[in-house]
Amino acid sequence: MIAKREIRVGLIGFGVVGRGVARLLATNGPLYAARIGAPVTLAKVAVRDLTKLRPVTPDPSMLTDDPFSIVNDPTIDIVIEVMGGEEPARSLILAALANGKGVVTANKALLAIHGEEIYAAAEAGNAPLRFEAAVGGVIPIVRTLNGAFAANKIDTVYGIVNGTCNYILSRMAEEGLGFEEILKDAQALGYAEADPTFDVEGIDAAHKMAILAALAFETPVDFNSVHMEGITRVSALDIRTAAQLGYVIKLIGVARRHNDTAVEVRVTPSLVPEWMPIASVNGALNAIEVSGPDIGDNLLVGPGAGQGPTASAVLGDVAVIARTIVDGAPPTPRPMNVPVALRRPLPALPLEKIESRYYLRFDTYDRPGVMAQLTRPLGDHGISIASMMQKEKVGKRADGASVVVVTHWAMESDLRAALAEIEGADILHCPTVVMRIIGDEEDE
Amino acid sequence: MIAKREIRVGLIGFGVVGRGVARLLATNGPLYAARIGAPVTLAKVAVRDLTKLRPVTPDPSMLTDDPFSIVNDPTIDIVIEVMGGEEPARSLILAALANGKGVVTANKALLAIHGEEIYAAAEAGNAPLRFEAAVGGVIPIVRTLNGAFAANKIDTVYGIVNGTCNYILSRMAEEGLGFEEILKDAQALGYAEADPTFDVEGIDAAHKMAILAALAFETPVDFNSVHMEGITRVSALDIRTAAQLGYVIKLIGVARRHNDTAVEVRVTPSLVPEWMPIASVNGALNAIEVSGPDIGDNLLVGPGAGQGPTASAVLGDVAVIARTIVDGAPPTPRPMNVPVALRRPLPALPLEKIESRYYLRFDTYDRPGVMAQLTRPLGDHGISIASMMQKEKVGKRADGASVVVVTHWAMESDLRAALAEIEGADILHCPTVVMRIIGDEEDE
Repeated sequence: MIAKREIRVGLIGFGVVGRGVARLLATNGPLYAARIGAPVTLAKVAVRDLTKLRPVTPDPSMLTDDPFSIVNDPTIDIVIEVMGGEEPARSLILAALANGKGVVTANKALLAIHGEEIYAAAEAGNAPLRFEAAVGGVIPIVRTLNGAFAANKIDTVYGIVNGTCNYILSRMAEEGLGFEEILKDAQALGYAEADPTFDVEGIDAAHKMAILAALAFETPVDFNSVHMEGITRVSALDIRTAAQLGYVIKLIGVARRHNDTAVEVRVTPSLVPEWMPIASVNGALNAIEVSGPDIGDNLLVGPGAGQGPTASAVLGDVAVIARTIVDGAPPTPRPMNVPVALRRPLPALPLEKIESRYYLRFDTYDRPGVMAQLTRPLGDHGISIASMMQKEKVGKRADGASVVVVTHWAMESDLRAALAEIEGADILHCPTVVMRIIGDEEDE
Repeated sequence: MIAKREIRVGLIGFGVVGRGVARLLATNGPLYAARIGAPVTLAKVAVRDLTKLRPVTPDPSMLTDDPFSIVNDPTIDIVIEVMGGEEPARSLILAALANGKGVVTANKALLAIHGEEIYAAAEAGNAPLRFEAAVGGVIPIVRTLNGAFAANKIDTVYGIVNGTCNYILSRMAEEGLGFEEILKDAQALGYAEADPTFDVEGIDAAHKMAILAALAFETPVDFNSVHMEGITRVSALDIRTAAQLGYVIKLIGVARRHNDTAVEVRVTPSLVPEWMPIASVNGALNAIEVSGPDIGDNLLVGPGAGQGPTASAVLGDVAVIARTIVDGAPPTPRPMNVPVALRRPLPALPLEKIESRYYLRFDTYDRPGVMAQLTRPLGDHGISIASMMQKEKVGKRADGASVVVVTHWAMESDLRAALAEIEGADILHCPTVVMRIIGDEEDE
């Protein structure tokens, strides 16, 4: 039953993911061939340094330190780019697509910033491009947005898309420790990189949300318009306080379409009601929810990174392209669900216009009149208080008091105006802690 | 950019789902066409009774009461079967496939029982067959098993696949009421059918698990080998007791591959640890987890039924077939992930050989020696007790005592032997309540 043809794959990058691809091809080769209809052969592997010793060494005859020799090799059907970074990955992918090759990439930073150029190149080159591994590891979120919900308009995509942050926040919640302590341990255990900036500052999550928003809402997304806050200032105190109110703190990316007039994309530490399934998604797991008028709320949870999951996602994509080659089907690049030319660009919703519920923690003075000075500006700006809690004295100041306010839905600009007034009143020891709250729409 | 061709669809069945398909096509037509590359036209609708008044009436010229006129119509590209039941659905689908038409069906009972015949017919007719809507509504579980995890071996598929049961159990837990009371209310609210047998006895869930097992493990599954227990005997007392131990009770389907030698498929009320995300999946939602050595645990949660979700799933499948037609690609029926001829049939694991952790509730006497009479037979049969709790007196008997035992992993045959001894000792008021426990593997 196996067709005669073989599919020849070139691998650019032989780090954790690249080695995983080679390992899975070796381990599950016969099953994979049966599912595709032809064997998939690793034909060439591009590495940076040919002399470096590797935990898994491919046949030396397939090694090269010139990745362009792969994208220009006429015997190679599909190029897998797992080297990461912007260049030369961008030039390599563009060259491969121009040569009509299938391209599978896990490069979220590249797609978030140069996606439009690459999607257009795929269509121009009539070359299939797939990138499931760029977001959420093996979680089938890209193919769900790109296929399963073909008849549906998507309103919202939100979730946990950075495993490092989720791991750190989960351990902070479990152990009651601070960010710096857990980060150090996460680095020692390999859950965070030596330079954790991309993860803990929310940049990686913002990359992923920009890709998902472009896909879900059929619009280019300017990465510079994505609002992002990381988790470095999330404190053990806020995690504990949130828990007392029935919430857990997660780094949440939100992408929302506003009536076909604007798109909101942001990444912020957020409070999630503990009754929501996503609140129980702990450790390095990712979770992404997609909502629309007819599909309701659909949540996908799984390992968002790691060798096995990411390599599996890459090979899931390779399989789709390989099947069309085996079947002799014409290549049909639809990287963005609809043809690039049919998309209607939507502007980014300005941050001031974004609405949310808020958690506010004021580190204030325990003296008469303070409560009114905190709450009056909120009311003056139309911000309604859903619940309020004065906490036990925190820190060393004898006259210190911690006041926590949970608001109903409010607009960012109103909140900022109210907070500016409060901060001008000289009643705070420290800047106000502001976090958004996810969910609870049904209570409003 | 829209190709010239149109895709003509014939709809068999105009109940809730069929009307949803018509409505979505009307509402989202332009978006759907952009995603496919051609408009999709509802060409014919087969109904049982032409004279019946309908909430949404299609153009009378496209109505027919002869569904065979649709599957034999050479102008129709894709047939959607949403009439349900075994016949004439089976004959209609076989005829459509023999005519080389694409077929999309939501008919889980049909596929669970006649799936092998239909899958083979799709390959023989070189006709694409898709059935995402048969399991979990719009949750993309079929296409995930059939595509996203192409390079992976799947070990386990388990979850909540019947929304009616999940709705009833969620409300029982929330309100502390009994099965019968909630069932009546669920029927009044439309969450349960007038004859709820298929749902509450676990038959519908077993249908779905049989389909998923066949897909995940590349084997035919004999529906008669699927072990099923419904939720009719789940009591408010057990829900309460489970909660005290940190569990929620769900109707859980499990499909597991045993070392390529056997397949286990079963549906039983089960205890789920409350820290697992699936434990928070309440109401009519479904949740399905897929696990394998490289993909880890992947959970998909969403509305498992209803007009919008099911019609969306149907049209997601129609889109895949329509795209290949628009692209002029050869039809490539791979309904079961691997060609039917390449599958290796795996026998069903006999129920006695199935291993699980167990929740046992003994309604016994409060008198000396009883505890030993309960626990000795367990130990004699190698069943290790993980935790134990004697509950406050329940019911009217003055000498009554309720003893709850949570076991470590044990084999069904050992458990049965132990329970037979205990039940022979004349120390029980009522038959023992036995439920399986999901998860917690990491503690063993």
